[in-house]
Amino acid sequence: MAGEFDFIEWVRQQQAQSDLVQVPAGDDLAVLKWPADDLLLVGVDQVLDGVHFDSTVHSPRAIGRKVMNRNLSDCAAMACLPAAAVATVALPKQPLAGFANQPLDYAKELYQGLRQAADFAGCALVGGDTATWDGKLAITVTILGRSAGIYPVTRSGAKVGDNIYVTGPLGGSILGRHMDFAPRILEARALASRGWITSMIDISDGLSRDLGHICQQSRVGALIEADQIPVHEDAIELFGRDHVAPLEHALHDGEDHELLFTSPQDLAAPEGLFRIGRITQGPGILLKSNDGALTLLEPKGWEHKL
Amino acid sequence: MAGEFDFIEWVRQQQAQSDLVQVPAGDDLAVLKWPADDLLLVGVDQVLDGVHFDSTVHSPRAIGRKVMNRNLSDCAAMACLPAAAVATVALPKQPLAGFANQPLDYAKELYQGLRQAADFAGCALVGGDTATWDGKLAITVTILGRSAGIYPVTRSGAKVGDNIYVTGPLGGSILGRHMDFAPRILEARALASRGWITSMIDISDGLSRDLGHICQQSRVGALIEADQIPVHEDAIELFGRDHVAPLEHALHDGEDHELLFTSPQDLAAPEGLFRIGRITQGPGILLKSNDGALTLLEPKGWEHKL
Repeated sequence: MAGEFDFIEWVRQQQAQSDLVQVPAGDDLAVLKWPADDLLLVGVDQVLDGVHFDSTVHSPRAIGRKVMNRNLSDCAAMACLPAAAVATVALPKQPLAGFANQPLDYAKELYQGLRQAADFAGCALVGGDTATWDGKLAITVTILGRSAGIYPVTRSGAKVGDNIYVTGPLGGSILGRHMDFAPRILEARALASRGWITSMIDISDGLSRDLGHICQQSRVGALIEADQIPVHEDAIELFGRDHVAPLEHALHDGEDHELLFTSPQDLAAPEGLFRIGRITQGPGILLKSNDGALTLLEPKGWEHKL
Repeated sequence: MAGEFDFIEWVRQQQAQSDLVQVPAGDDLAVLKWPADDLLLVGVDQVLDGVHFDSTVHSPRAIGRKVMNRNLSDCAAMACLPAAAVATVALPKQPLAGFANQPLDYAKELYQGLRQAADFAGCALVGGDTATWDGKLAITVTILGRSAGIYPVTRSGAKVGDNIYVTGPLGGSILGRHMDFAPRILEARALASRGWITSMIDISDGLSRDLGHICQQSRVGALIEADQIPVHEDAIELFGRDHVAPLEHALHDGEDHELLFTSPQDLAAPEGLFRIGRITQGPGILLKSNDGALTLLEPKGWEHKL
């Protein structure tokens, strides 16, 4: 298939955007010069047909954007700057919706989606591996981020008494936002550069589960207040369909990709931040309902990872 | 599934082996301190059920080893030192051979395979992403390599008059060697450190195709001699089954993962090297048969990549 889509040339164009690249594309590995003062952050996320997207519904461009944005959101969670990425695509031999007998056109659209998201974040796609198989569509992106002046924020630094914030309303992402969200890289870097953040994560598995990750890694508990949790209008719309309370959606739905972080600071609402509670000695996460009752919040929501 | 297999703890054990790791596992991204003098080489390879392995035949440990070794072989091809890796596993919900209703045991075996191969090369597995789906088994590894004193060898430096070498006999890898090979990292570093190598690639797509890659990127041609090409005994055994000449297997079979390189030096055979021809002005690759006749060698063989 080499003749029909010059992947190496395509990657070369991408690489030209990065001043990290030392050797033009064409080899098994891309050659980068990592800035001497920067830590290197690396991680990988996959998206799978039927789990993270539906190839009969979502366009290849939207799918490409999603997998790249998931990885960019991981960079946001640690307040690093996305710098370079490599991707794999496992492409079905069977025709895909809207692209009957045109798997390469489909792949090109996927790569355009990856590129759109990466370009927006100033990240260069420096390599990849595409194969066709008698299986379903699976895409991975591995992201390399630079600390670039900000020591990486982890999940393990939350302190008792810290305020807990989220960067936007939650719940109902399944209505479409899970495919189309803006990684909060600039917000994360702005907050972290001021030294305001003690721990952070992006909400991919759901608020209850991801707050659980912070509490577990920081060895603390949390108290969150039901009436302070920003509920997305999608969660309300979803309630009309499934009769699950909007707050439940906000607490447990996955793939919002807003940031969840802790800070000793009292950060004002005008900045698009929502204070939802505070860190306690624990154990566990307590939810304070509107009538003042406290209940233990069990983690629910997405379970992509082992 | 978090409780049944503590992936974070497992990765933490892996990370402990690397002095590059700055922050223990538990976040979306691993944090590494890249050696200031080293270039960073990065690439990714996937293996897919039914294409690169057969999950009804091959053990998860063998599959894990294969995908890691493919990536380590990419490091060998550029004469860099494997330093760190991240992996994804897309795990079928359907029972896998020998592991009915035990997908996590299967995943653990896969990771042990990844680890065995990585350990052998001194490479740390620093992160990953595992998900279950209603699809077939797909695994990716992204590898980060260090130049560590040797400028990366590429495919583009072959010069007219260079000798062409391979590091071992070729052909018939489908009989089993494609699952179980030793990446030629030490050989590559030993040769490259002496400045002897002008271009290099690992034979994954087959000799004819991979020599084609070198010729294309170096803008040269090649003349190879049929009676100098080392034919693996597996190619002879395969001839007994498919009646395709052993030489054809040696020329076109994929996944030998021996190194193919060019050198102006006259390197002696005792070192386990086989001189198979020389670089010409081209165009194209000529094959000189035993009777002296010249024929144009068309690239055949594996076609995994776009």
